[in-house]
Amino acid sequence: MSEAWRSYLETHRDRFLNEFLELLRIPSVSTEPSLAGEVRRAAEWTADRLRQAGIENVQVMDTQCHPVVYGDWLHAGADKPTLLFYGHFDVQPADPLELWTSPPFDPRVEDGCIFARGASDMKGSLLLPAIACEALLKTEGKLPVNVKFLYEGEEEIGSPSLTRFIQENRDRLACDMVVCADGGVGSEDDPVVNVGRRGLTALEVTVRSANTDLHSGGAGGMVHNALHALVQILASMRDEEGRILVEGFYDDVRPLTEEERAEIAKAPFDADAYKAAIGIKDFFGEPEYTPQERNVARPTLEVNGLWGGYQGAGTKTVIPCEAHAKITCRLVPDQDPERVAKCVIDHIHKVAPRQVEVSIETFPGDADPYLLPADHPGLQALEKAVAAVSKKWPARVRGGGTVPITGMMKRLLGVDTITLGASGGMERAHAPNEFVRIRNFERIQYAYCMLLQELGAR
Amino acid sequence: MSEAWRSYLETHRDRFLNEFLELLRIPSVSTEPSLAGEVRRAAEWTADRLRQAGIENVQVMDTQCHPVVYGDWLHAGADKPTLLFYGHFDVQPADPLELWTSPPFDPRVEDGCIFARGASDMKGSLLLPAIACEALLKTEGKLPVNVKFLYEGEEEIGSPSLTRFIQENRDRLACDMVVCADGGVGSEDDPVVNVGRRGLTALEVTVRSANTDLHSGGAGGMVHNALHALVQILASMRDEEGRILVEGFYDDVRPLTEEERAEIAKAPFDADAYKAAIGIKDFFGEPEYTPQERNVARPTLEVNGLWGGYQGAGTKTVIPCEAHAKITCRLVPDQDPERVAKCVIDHIHKVAPRQVEVSIETFPGDADPYLLPADHPGLQALEKAVAAVSKKWPARVRGGGTVPITGMMKRLLGVDTITLGASGGMERAHAPNEFVRIRNFERIQYAYCMLLQELGAR
Repeated sequence: MSEAWRSYLETHRDRFLNEFLELLRIPSVSTEPSLAGEVRRAAEWTADRLRQAGIENVQVMDTQCHPVVYGDWLHAGADKPTLLFYGHFDVQPADPLELWTSPPFDPRVEDGCIFARGASDMKGSLLLPAIACEALLKTEGKLPVNVKFLYEGEEEIGSPSLTRFIQENRDRLACDMVVCADGGVGSEDDPVVNVGRRGLTALEVTVRSANTDLHSGGAGGMVHNALHALVQILASMRDEEGRILVEGFYDDVRPLTEEERAEIAKAPFDADAYKAAIGIKDFFGEPEYTPQERNVARPTLEVNGLWGGYQGAGTKTVIPCEAHAKITCRLVPDQDPERVAKCVIDHIHKVAPRQVEVSIETFPGDADPYLLPADHPGLQALEKAVAAVSKKWPARVRGGGTVPITGMMKRLLGVDTITLGASGGMERAHAPNEFVRIRNFERIQYAYCMLLQELGAR
Repeated sequence: MSEAWRSYLETHRDRFLNEFLELLRIPSVSTEPSLAGEVRRAAEWTADRLRQAGIENVQVMDTQCHPVVYGDWLHAGADKPTLLFYGHFDVQPADPLELWTSPPFDPRVEDGCIFARGASDMKGSLLLPAIACEALLKTEGKLPVNVKFLYEGEEEIGSPSLTRFIQENRDRLACDMVVCADGGVGSEDDPVVNVGRRGLTALEVTVRSANTDLHSGGAGGMVHNALHALVQILASMRDEEGRILVEGFYDDVRPLTEEERAEIAKAPFDADAYKAAIGIKDFFGEPEYTPQERNVARPTLEVNGLWGGYQGAGTKTVIPCEAHAKITCRLVPDQDPERVAKCVIDHIHKVAPRQVEVSIETFPGDADPYLLPADHPGLQALEKAVAAVSKKWPARVRGGGTVPITGMMKRLLGVDTITLGASGGMERAHAPNEFVRIRNFERIQYAYCMLLQELGAR
């Protein structure tokens, strides 16, 4: 088997890196309505990049929200499998800006890493399938498998229009498996392949206690305070050890088997290094489970944002009349996002003080939890490809994060999803000073070429 | 006794109103360091206004923080009492700006009211003693009592440098009683005189759970969330009915006597009108006390501001590493601000989860609670003056707010404080769309003249 693609990757490495930096400079924050134009610019950039790689039928397709990029190359033959590459070109907001060492959309290269919003999640990974296809097409004139690309621009807001897009493009997207570039395969020393993701549901609570902020002298002692009411509501949702006290929340959680607990324990995890890296004194959460078990196989309920009243300098003696909290829950098999959201909403209404008014908004983009079957044909090919760019055979791990596409593809197209990306974990995804290791960005290009060849050889 | 001052007030009423509007246009927000120049501008304006009234030795005096305005007129004779007028020309911040119907520093006159930040608290009241002195001096050539003025620019931040200023100017400020213009005497139908104020102590809590915000997928289940930790801390400080659970908090609270409860019950208070005005469903607080008792004679602990994590549009799946809360406590006799702050700080450290770091900042400007002796000579003169501009004899009431000067003057100069101002209550002091009734601004000018004459005739 010719391996001219190897020298092609080597020859063009600086160009690939510069393309990555170029994409990082587009502030494609999908949560921020005023940046919708930047999300579209990232879509156009991505479409151009696919065309340049030799992908055909590339188009930027409108949805109800942010656009999707589609492309394909379908000349490997009907006996060869069809892979659907999935990724997203949108990113999380960059705030709090003051905690960034360098501007989030002006990537900084330092110590073999690239620092920028989207560096890890997932503008580098997005390029990998395109680079692999380019290398194979330019050196061999063809690909060993049929490929399709589905890159979206609203993953960070929960892919509100993707379900409908997939439903309306079911034939166009038909495939044998999905290869998701959103994720990683660990380090060279401790490689992993992901076999599971948590689901997600999100909501926002607003408490109103009066029609105006009140003077804490003039009214203090007589009226409820929206912040205290919200604090009381939120405090009722978890106990001091992190167990979730919302009635029905755990009802559909599939108990962990001994086999699963053993597999989770085998995944590479350096507890002391992890604690030191993020500056925590100790882990936190249900003491009945290990931190890793809680992270990948137990559901969570987290307040992601909370605000009300005066946030400026000094004091302001006010009784705030409004308070807000954003909440997300990570879900595990067999929890249903809608049912969990309903439990949380019911709980909030049940415990809210009678003096205040509570309104709750749910967000589109609920995601099912997902587990890849242990005997899936893509899984072995993936393990082989990852092993080839690592120092040992990869461990099978579950991830704590959410890739809505996994559950969505299973539900809508009936196919499973394997994951291959450049993210190495602990890269401050969603946080200030997000980064990715250039070494991973490069070696996973090789893994992609090998995955395609492995699946084409079957 | 000549009453030419009455026609003087009548003749110049439009000018007095326009002067009030002029002062309201100065955004003298003392909490906002960038507006320090505006606080000074308000001081210079006030000093000019006193000179124009015929007050002597007027000067703007520097302190460690915002300047003080002093002035006097001391020619009534040694047998006449000396009054010290107190007021402040600084105001609370105007935010949230979006809730104002018209710009906070561009006063709007509508329905007999003036809407602006500082309209009620207390730029109108500030002018009253100056207007009264002007009217008496211009029509009678002298005042019936000796007067001194002490107007400060940092009341809304707790008067951090006023204690030292008074200590350093003890002789200059020596007097027989203080007349505080910061407050009100109710409506014409339901007049009141204030005989008590609550004290104040303030602090800010910061919780840190990691050195960076974390991805709620990547870390969720393993680490504590600064917001949840802060919620847990705050929830532990009050029960569901508003009782404060901080150990030692109530230790020095003087039990209410039956006489005090009866006096509080007699103060004018229309519960239904109050609830409708501020849009609350019901009162809130210790069920053992009435709302009015809780407001003026029971201490409070209120979260005035709370924030952390993501506050923008949509969702952000982050575990925030920092959370902040601003807390103030209103205090009653015989609580000591420093001792109460220490109880709160000890409580916070005791209940804080071991996984997080907590830091607590206290603010300068603690204030003692204050009660005017029932037999104070100024009190009867005040009641007579208020009765003269009202439809009945005023009730003696305690206020829920804090006027640090009351406790401070007792402690530093050994004198008591009576209160006479234009604020009518329920005027959204410290909140958006603050206003004052022009009718009160005008009739209390008359009350000031009568108070001076009454005290001069004794």
